[in-house]
Amino acid sequence: MRVDLINTGTELVLGRTVNTHLSYIGEQLFHAGLRIQHQVCIPDGDVIGRTLEERFPRADIILVTGGLGPTSDDITRELTAKLLGLDLHFDASVAENIRGYYAVRNRPFGEGGRRQSMVPEGAIVLPNGYGTAPGLYLPRTERNPHLFLLPGPPRELYPMFEDHVLPQLRAIVGRSKVTSREWKFCGLGESELAEHLEPPLSKIPQLEIGYCAKIMEVHLRCLGEEKALEEAEAVVQRVYPYHLVSDDLRSIEEIVVELLADRGHWVSFAESCTGGMLAHRLTNVSGASAVLAESHVTYANEVKTRLLGVDPVAIEDHGVVSAPVARQMAEGALTLSGADHALGVTGIAGPTGGSDAKPVGTVFIGLASKRAETHVEPCFYPTDRETFKWRTTQRALDLLRRRLLGYPLDEA
Amino acid sequence: MRVDLINTGTELVLGRTVNTHLSYIGEQLFHAGLRIQHQVCIPDGDVIGRTLEERFPRADIILVTGGLGPTSDDITRELTAKLLGLDLHFDASVAENIRGYYAVRNRPFGEGGRRQSMVPEGAIVLPNGYGTAPGLYLPRTERNPHLFLLPGPPRELYPMFEDHVLPQLRAIVGRSKVTSREWKFCGLGESELAEHLEPPLSKIPQLEIGYCAKIMEVHLRCLGEEKALEEAEAVVQRVYPYHLVSDDLRSIEEIVVELLADRGHWVSFAESCTGGMLAHRLTNVSGASAVLAESHVTYANEVKTRLLGVDPVAIEDHGVVSAPVARQMAEGALTLSGADHALGVTGIAGPTGGSDAKPVGTVFIGLASKRAETHVEPCFYPTDRETFKWRTTQRALDLLRRRLLGYPLDEA
Repeated sequence: MRVDLINTGTELVLGRTVNTHLSYIGEQLFHAGLRIQHQVCIPDGDVIGRTLEERFPRADIILVTGGLGPTSDDITRELTAKLLGLDLHFDASVAENIRGYYAVRNRPFGEGGRRQSMVPEGAIVLPNGYGTAPGLYLPRTERNPHLFLLPGPPRELYPMFEDHVLPQLRAIVGRSKVTSREWKFCGLGESELAEHLEPPLSKIPQLEIGYCAKIMEVHLRCLGEEKALEEAEAVVQRVYPYHLVSDDLRSIEEIVVELLADRGHWVSFAESCTGGMLAHRLTNVSGASAVLAESHVTYANEVKTRLLGVDPVAIEDHGVVSAPVARQMAEGALTLSGADHALGVTGIAGPTGGSDAKPVGTVFIGLASKRAETHVEPCFYPTDRETFKWRTTQRALDLLRRRLLGYPLDEA
Repeated sequence: MRVDLINTGTELVLGRTVNTHLSYIGEQLFHAGLRIQHQVCIPDGDVIGRTLEERFPRADIILVTGGLGPTSDDITRELTAKLLGLDLHFDASVAENIRGYYAVRNRPFGEGGRRQSMVPEGAIVLPNGYGTAPGLYLPRTERNPHLFLLPGPPRELYPMFEDHVLPQLRAIVGRSKVTSREWKFCGLGESELAEHLEPPLSKIPQLEIGYCAKIMEVHLRCLGEEKALEEAEAVVQRVYPYHLVSDDLRSIEEIVVELLADRGHWVSFAESCTGGMLAHRLTNVSGASAVLAESHVTYANEVKTRLLGVDPVAIEDHGVVSAPVARQMAEGALTLSGADHALGVTGIAGPTGGSDAKPVGTVFIGLASKRAETHVEPCFYPTDRETFKWRTTQRALDLLRRRLLGYPLDEA
């Protein structure tokens, strides 16, 4: 089936807003076994009519985002109805919802509310739980392909897409029993993952697979009926038990917070080159205050010694970016905080500060725990400053995850 | 002039990669006084030919990204030459550059290098400083509009765009003396900014202006000849001297690091609800180690007392999210670190932890300095957890910026 996506919005073509609709909808369509063949981005206004007309004969399904709002440049609904020769009628139940939405915010229903309550004849209303304008689905006729008119703002679009658009798409493609699952892996690359998972996964009938490589993380997506997905889950668990971070879209920081909370454990960080990013990432998770009481950025040598008790002789002998210092930072943070686990990180983020012996990207991660030996490992992430911080924190969080699960700490 | 953008890449329509080309190029075109009328995203392969043919009669300038690489699905160059009936010839100087690029990486020149060295007759080569495939510019003929074939990877595309594409575009539109400038403001909204700047700016002849609202930051862009831009600069400086963060694209954290370094001052943070994001943002700036020696996340009350000396009675009497605690955190961090300035932040990031008296989004920021009175202010940012952290750190960094510059600390 040929799927077209039309994104309308002057702010998109002016470059003021990154268009994330394509990437979001592209990913979502996978869950219905569909893919986009053609996406176009156009300003608000009349051009939407011409674009629809051009694409009608070339697509089986057209998804349009934007232009359903209450202002005068939101004319997707009206232009589409005109193009298809459909009357618009006032829908009392849509109006009811909009009235309720406005009432809570002390705003009048007005002309904008009235326009958003108009529905083309034959259209199926897709409820909007997070805004005013409902989505509209016009099933295929001789005149037009399946046509979905959807709101532009992501916080309105995303829930509507998952709750109301995907079920319609699954019905259209006749694959209502097909669902999808996604696994996140840390500590190995896309090609390595594919090499070891592809042979066993390819033996599972009716299973479609796809990969997505992020920084220091690979996602595997499978599409199929429940039985096939369960077989895939068994393969994944058998081949990569230690690298598998989550099977339900949760991030590594969410997993780490949950593992700590389940065990009633506390963690603390002593960060040098990551400059607070470890604490920042962990505290992005709601509930982090139950597992993190304190964390420290110790940039200066003097602070490493004063706060964490790092031996100045070790700094002198091995350099501040060294395994002994990472060990002492982790162990010092453990003692200072009384936590169950502590990570200590020291390295050279760059772009300056490197040397021949220790180039930019050199980093040592120490993991100390109350009931386990301290683990220290050298890593090397020569890249830009922010990516260096991301990679280092990713590896550090993965070490902590593995320790909490009793897994081996080696990458392999 | 009608400008079209065609982005090719199967990974884009599959949703694996967010297409940032539209937003990047949309912004860049402003600097040449142009805007995109139509953008399309298509998979690798034959469809590029059909798409070009469709758009030729409707555009004056077409920019194509992607499909110039060495692999078999990179066929933009070949399809375009075929479509225009142009011969491809081997360009020795292009080949020379590609050979050099591969040699450094110990990779053979091979068939891929040879294909990337082919140039359609009449094309102007746009050098690629960060990869192999050069860009190609085919000036307008009776057959085709101005046509730019550009590489897909951003690290190759961006420098090429700024160094080689923009000058060509300026020549095409005949506005080679026109340049642009951008100002960043913190502490006021887009509509307020526009209301006060629009009247004086609109009196400057031959000046085009545009706004871009980010979270807790507004950017003003002006386009014109040097004289008009200097007049605009004077207006901005006169109307909003305190809100103006930078006039050269630098971020507020870069400005703060520079201001601290210029004065030989140090800063330290005591973060509760921002969980390390203040330190993380500051340490994204290279050179942060010259202005930040230590920083602390003090989530638990006990840690606020033990490390920063916050009075337990103040926590008991006013609650941990309160002005007195923010003050004591800032002053405690100042004493602990011996720094010249310290920020203390306490608040409720949510989604849980709010109450009627102190709902989610409540936050107090304290700023202590060696040579100034401590400033404490209540803020209210009811939003999601990560945006809350961003807004709070943005306001905190702006307070520090204003103090370093001797500006009033009030929003107004």
